[in-house]
Amino acid sequence: MNAEIISIGDELLIGQTVNTNASWMGQEMSRIGVDVSRVTVISDKEDEIISALEGARDRVDLVLITGGLGPTRDDITKITIAKHFGTKLVENSEVLENVKNRLKARGKELNELNRRQALVPDRARVFMNNWGTAPGMWCDRDNKVVVSMPGVPTEMKGLMKEYVLPAIVEKFSPPVIIHRTILTTGVIEAELADLLKNFEDELPGEIKLAYLPSAPVIKLRLSARGKDRKKLETILDKQEDKLNKTIPDLVFGRETESMEQIVGDMLRKRNMTLSTAESCTGGNISHLITSVPGSSEYYVGSVVAYSNKIKINSLGVDAKVLDNQGAVSKEAVMQMAVGVKRQMETDFSIAVSGIAGPDGGTEDKPVGTVWIGIASERGAYAYRLSLGNDRAANIHMASVISLNLLRKSILKSD
Amino acid sequence: MNAEIISIGDELLIGQTVNTNASWMGQEMSRIGVDVSRVTVISDKEDEIISALEGARDRVDLVLITGGLGPTRDDITKITIAKHFGTKLVENSEVLENVKNRLKARGKELNELNRRQALVPDRARVFMNNWGTAPGMWCDRDNKVVVSMPGVPTEMKGLMKEYVLPAIVEKFSPPVIIHRTILTTGVIEAELADLLKNFEDELPGEIKLAYLPSAPVIKLRLSARGKDRKKLETILDKQEDKLNKTIPDLVFGRETESMEQIVGDMLRKRNMTLSTAESCTGGNISHLITSVPGSSEYYVGSVVAYSNKIKINSLGVDAKVLDNQGAVSKEAVMQMAVGVKRQMETDFSIAVSGIAGPDGGTEDKPVGTVWIGIASERGAYAYRLSLGNDRAANIHMASVISLNLLRKSILKSD
Repeated sequence: MNAEIISIGDELLIGQTVNTNASWMGQEMSRIGVDVSRVTVISDKEDEIISALEGARDRVDLVLITGGLGPTRDDITKITIAKHFGTKLVENSEVLENVKNRLKARGKELNELNRRQALVPDRARVFMNNWGTAPGMWCDRDNKVVVSMPGVPTEMKGLMKEYVLPAIVEKFSPPVIIHRTILTTGVIEAELADLLKNFEDELPGEIKLAYLPSAPVIKLRLSARGKDRKKLETILDKQEDKLNKTIPDLVFGRETESMEQIVGDMLRKRNMTLSTAESCTGGNISHLITSVPGSSEYYVGSVVAYSNKIKINSLGVDAKVLDNQGAVSKEAVMQMAVGVKRQMETDFSIAVSGIAGPDGGTEDKPVGTVWIGIASERGAYAYRLSLGNDRAANIHMASVISLNLLRKSILKSD
Repeated sequence: MNAEIISIGDELLIGQTVNTNASWMGQEMSRIGVDVSRVTVISDKEDEIISALEGARDRVDLVLITGGLGPTRDDITKITIAKHFGTKLVENSEVLENVKNRLKARGKELNELNRRQALVPDRARVFMNNWGTAPGMWCDRDNKVVVSMPGVPTEMKGLMKEYVLPAIVEKFSPPVIIHRTILTTGVIEAELADLLKNFEDELPGEIKLAYLPSAPVIKLRLSARGKDRKKLETILDKQEDKLNKTIPDLVFGRETESMEQIVGDMLRKRNMTLSTAESCTGGNISHLITSVPGSSEYYVGSVVAYSNKIKINSLGVDAKVLDNQGAVSKEAVMQMAVGVKRQMETDFSIAVSGIAGPDGGTEDKPVGTVWIGIASERGAYAYRLSLGNDRAANIHMASVISLNLLRKSILKSD
């Protein structure tokens, strides 16, 4: 079955907020077998909301709306939904109690703006918001359901998990759709498509393959649709296995795993530790690693050595190497890797030094030149990247590629 | 004038990719005075593309389409657009040359898949893609324009900046809309709305105020629309000034500035330097600071001390403090701040230690407890935060709040 999402908010249209809500909702809907067939982003205007709502209700049986439920004056979703359903807003005493309690916990009093949060369309099913003040609302008319939720991500996610997703499964009993995502890195999309040409030609009819590039990673998504979940799982198992065998050097993970989770799990299982020494990545590798809960079990720390003085004093890099070969050199990253590994007494270390840009490039070492060093008990080695001109992309790519090099080193050390 | 964006791709609907393209395009369109009135996200299916395209062309004169132009088999946008306009695809020799050259630079040969990139709808204006292989296409029929671009962000952005935005201004001469964004932090949305009640009541009719919260920051956006740019600028200047005077302690910047840019500029202007010592933020403060080009002028480095051993050995924190008060304590962050400032010989330092979660909380120090230390020539002080249970949000909020505390310290040091 199909559903549509309507995201309300000028801030989304003028691009001051990225619509991460819609992607999170898309993931969750797809998990319960509902296809999101369209996401429509519109502004806080009554006619826009009504036109989008009518269009969506014509096409599908389930419409999820987020946004426009805050206490401030530009938020008009609730009134418009009530108008669309030809009903009026009534004060819900349970919601009012929740609003009062939440304000009280913060030492605040109820004001006129916050009191409005307790108004809901008459006959709507109300979902209590345990993460904020605006409730979720489920309006079922002629077996077509419209759900309205606040746009604040934590509140929307709380309402979805606790109430909306279970209510959708109960009401619609959606058919089976299963996705498998295989994570690859190492080649560009066209090369990957070439390598997978035969695999694609031989795919059974009920399976679809999609390429989802986000450099340096390309996700491959196999989708199966049908009635028999068990049968689809078996077909997908076989195809996933075949895919892994077709490009074994490129596959590093699956589903929603991240490189930092995968590397972290590998270290934890082996009871091994990691430290990092970062120059051009400026702490981003450390940030990625520590974004994983429990990373303190294997991650000891980092020296972000943005200045050469710190490279010499804190990491023991030879001043002569910095003078002769420069900070962006094979010798410098090898010394940084060895230095931080020794100082932090870890099993592995990563060191990165490069020119992230947009300035600072030379003819020999243009912007995008990055050296990565990996040290382990077996010694150190270095790897050179030639990336582009985009600072943020260079930092991201150098970080992920260095974690992938570490992953390969850990595998070799077994 | 209004435009719509159509983003094509299953990966957006099932949420494996976040639609950052649409928000970037929304920002750019708004800058040239075009209102994006709707963003529609649909899948790679012919009937979906045609239905969305027809709907959009009914409502507006300009439709921007991204996605579905890659060389892989699930990409059908180009064929569908040609069909919609009742025309066929023809090979463009200039594009073919570009594809060949780009492949050659990578040491690759033209294959059948890549050759398809050179096919464009007959009579379309073609924009050369200098960042990839798929060209941009501008189809003008009955004074309604449809532009198709690849979904890869760097390619779309390159095409927009170089060709599409100038072509829109030339074709449509859009009317004047001006936004001013004022960045605040320190209170929640409802409190801010209370503080700004009078300001809002007194706003002139042509000005609209919107609240755009992304904790710990709330952006306030003033929008003015009219014909006379100069007059609107004058009104906005006055209102922005009034707003700044209403909440002087909460305003920290404007427009697209980030906290890390603002703090960086303040340090650069004063010829002062910064170092950081991070525990629970795990390198994220360092990452934010170094995401700003030129940050090496004022940023020296960081010690990410994830383990207590590193706090003692690299930062000189007293082992007794860690035993008695714990790593998440006022004493520990003050010592971390003083230690890293001394070691890296900087004018200022930030230290952060806390319990990011989801585990590791105690009754005294629940998840979300974070201590921030700031050291300067005038001594050190510490500040305690009580955040929530979300690890990523805690890391982000602690990072931004610590930079804001540094900002206040720098101002006080003048």
